[in-house]
Amino acid sequence: MSNSDSDKTRCRIIVDAMGGDFAPYSAVVGAIQASTENSKIELYLVGKSEEILKIISSNNLSFNKENIINADEVIGMAEGPTASLKAKPNSSIVVGTKLVHEKKADAFVSAGNTGAVMAAATLIIGRIPGVGRPTIGQPMPNTTGISTLFDVGASVDSKPRHLLEYAIMGTIFTKEIYGIENPKVGVLSVGEEEAKGNEVTIAAAALIKKTNLNFVGNVEGRDILKGTVHVVVCDGFVGNIVLKFGESVLDFLKYKFKDYAKKSLINKLKIGLVKGSMKEILKDFDYQEYGGVPLLGVNGISIIGHGSSTPKAIKNMVFRAYEMYQKDLILKIENSIRQYSNLT
Amino acid sequence: MSNSDSDKTRCRIIVDAMGGDFAPYSAVVGAIQASTENSKIELYLVGKSEEILKIISSNNLSFNKENIINADEVIGMAEGPTASLKAKPNSSIVVGTKLVHEKKADAFVSAGNTGAVMAAATLIIGRIPGVGRPTIGQPMPNTTGISTLFDVGASVDSKPRHLLEYAIMGTIFTKEIYGIENPKVGVLSVGEEEAKGNEVTIAAAALIKKTNLNFVGNVEGRDILKGTVHVVVCDGFVGNIVLKFGESVLDFLKYKFKDYAKKSLINKLKIGLVKGSMKEILKDFDYQEYGGVPLLGVNGISIIGHGSSTPKAIKNMVFRAYEMYQKDLILKIENSIRQYSNLT
Repeated sequence: MSNSDSDKTRCRIIVDAMGGDFAPYSAVVGAIQASTENSKIELYLVGKSEEILKIISSNNLSFNKENIINADEVIGMAEGPTASLKAKPNSSIVVGTKLVHEKKADAFVSAGNTGAVMAAATLIIGRIPGVGRPTIGQPMPNTTGISTLFDVGASVDSKPRHLLEYAIMGTIFTKEIYGIENPKVGVLSVGEEEAKGNEVTIAAAALIKKTNLNFVGNVEGRDILKGTVHVVVCDGFVGNIVLKFGESVLDFLKYKFKDYAKKSLINKLKIGLVKGSMKEILKDFDYQEYGGVPLLGVNGISIIGHGSSTPKAIKNMVFRAYEMYQKDLILKIENSIRQYSNLT
Repeated sequence: MSNSDSDKTRCRIIVDAMGGDFAPYSAVVGAIQASTENSKIELYLVGKSEEILKIISSNNLSFNKENIINADEVIGMAEGPTASLKAKPNSSIVVGTKLVHEKKADAFVSAGNTGAVMAAATLIIGRIPGVGRPTIGQPMPNTTGISTLFDVGASVDSKPRHLLEYAIMGTIFTKEIYGIENPKVGVLSVGEEEAKGNEVTIAAAALIKKTNLNFVGNVEGRDILKGTVHVVVCDGFVGNIVLKFGESVLDFLKYKFKDYAKKSLINKLKIGLVKGSMKEILKDFDYQEYGGVPLLGVNGISIIGHGSSTPKAIKNMVFRAYEMYQKDLILKIENSIRQYSNLT
């Protein structure tokens, strides 16, 4: 694990082997696949060595055993973030995050307890200078591509200046990772007019307006999937509710389709006939494709995955971490935050 | 138009003939249909007399011309609420609402400009004693029935005591209108635990806990369509965003289906085959069935409809107004708000 900051030929990525509902299987298989496909990735697996080795051998994978970092404790998916970090200093999340903090690794990837990964990154690695609050971005499909919602749960009761930070960080992420030259930014509100919104969004919009960002003003709930803007800025409370509601719409529709199929044989045949089509149509909502959600604003690369991450999802998360490293995202965020520090 | 407060044999309902995208057609046809089906409804139509008469004659409807109240002005769907009320004192919305305020009618029904109907009701009729903020409820389908989201846009930056009011009013509405004996109430938040939420929701939950309402604590975005509770309490900023986002998910899926059908003849045939099934499956989301959205907390009955209300939607809105009148909803809300006045 040696790498100078300027040497971008290799990227040392630590994957939390114990994170996620299908750990360690998904994490180990997906991570090794990523490093096989991209030889510039120097992969480390952190977690219970024995369990990791078992997965490697039972799946006939080849992996350098020296790159397994033992961590005996596991933070469960439902444990309280801050308490679990204190209680389990030898957990894969704490151990992995510390290695990034100590510059012994370039990125940490986990499909484990979101709150714990986020708290670890914030408390152990710390924030990028000038950032008040880190933010988690959630990619959402739209008719022409992807828009990303910042924040979806890293923080609640955000102040206007935090929404400004989300706008700045979201712009850099969208530009560098999705290759959108001048991403459009909107503040999520209850109407397009400047006067519409709550106290925080109205003040935030006034702040963002003063930047050189491509700010279009307020957008509404319906604009998220319409793709009106690339970066949708909101408080984590709102973003988290929208995100979970959105997931449940799909679950509800699946339930309704099943229920409909149960009603008669003809219904069953009809639904059976279009099952494949439905899957194809709904694949835009497939979190596996998105490479996890980035935690922006912490002074190191941290990628958080869906609890139910498959090997494919983990692989894409590792690739995302690599991309963020190659593109110097942390440094670019630091510079841009500094550029607008006079506004707050 | 004479009726004493205790005489519930008749219910005088004023329908805004000019409200909605398909006005006056939808409003006039739907309203007359409602009064034909229920003889206890004494219907009044407010709007441009000539236009109303034209619809009546061209559709061969029978209606007592004395029950047409002329109002020459029309508030457009996109006009600013408060400004339009001032600028157009002879609009159907202002004239109709005034008649309710003067006790010359028992309810006002409109598919017009939501903000204007709401502002008229609040400013002209006034609030029920003890109510700080009126609330608009949005019915949402779930696997077993309906849950209603309060508030979806009547007010933003709600204080904890306002969320308490939404919980009280939502409980009464759900009990009386949907016949749910002891409706479950939840505060929309980012996690089930008591400590999860923003400052307002945490304080609101602590307040609601002190009532005799059937309060289950926090619910999450995914619980809305799951039907975890009957009454989902949230600030109007959040509710409005969730509502509009939800509508857009369906639009997005429709777009995706169409797009998929365009790709090949086989796709087109498949989608064509299940088009009817899809409609049946999605009909739970059909706003027409829900009888509009109630504006609770104003001292008179006011029902607001979707801009694209069909005659059927208008008819159901008139029936809803009738039900609210028969069940003395205003009085029951006033009593319940008084019962908990010591909490705030």
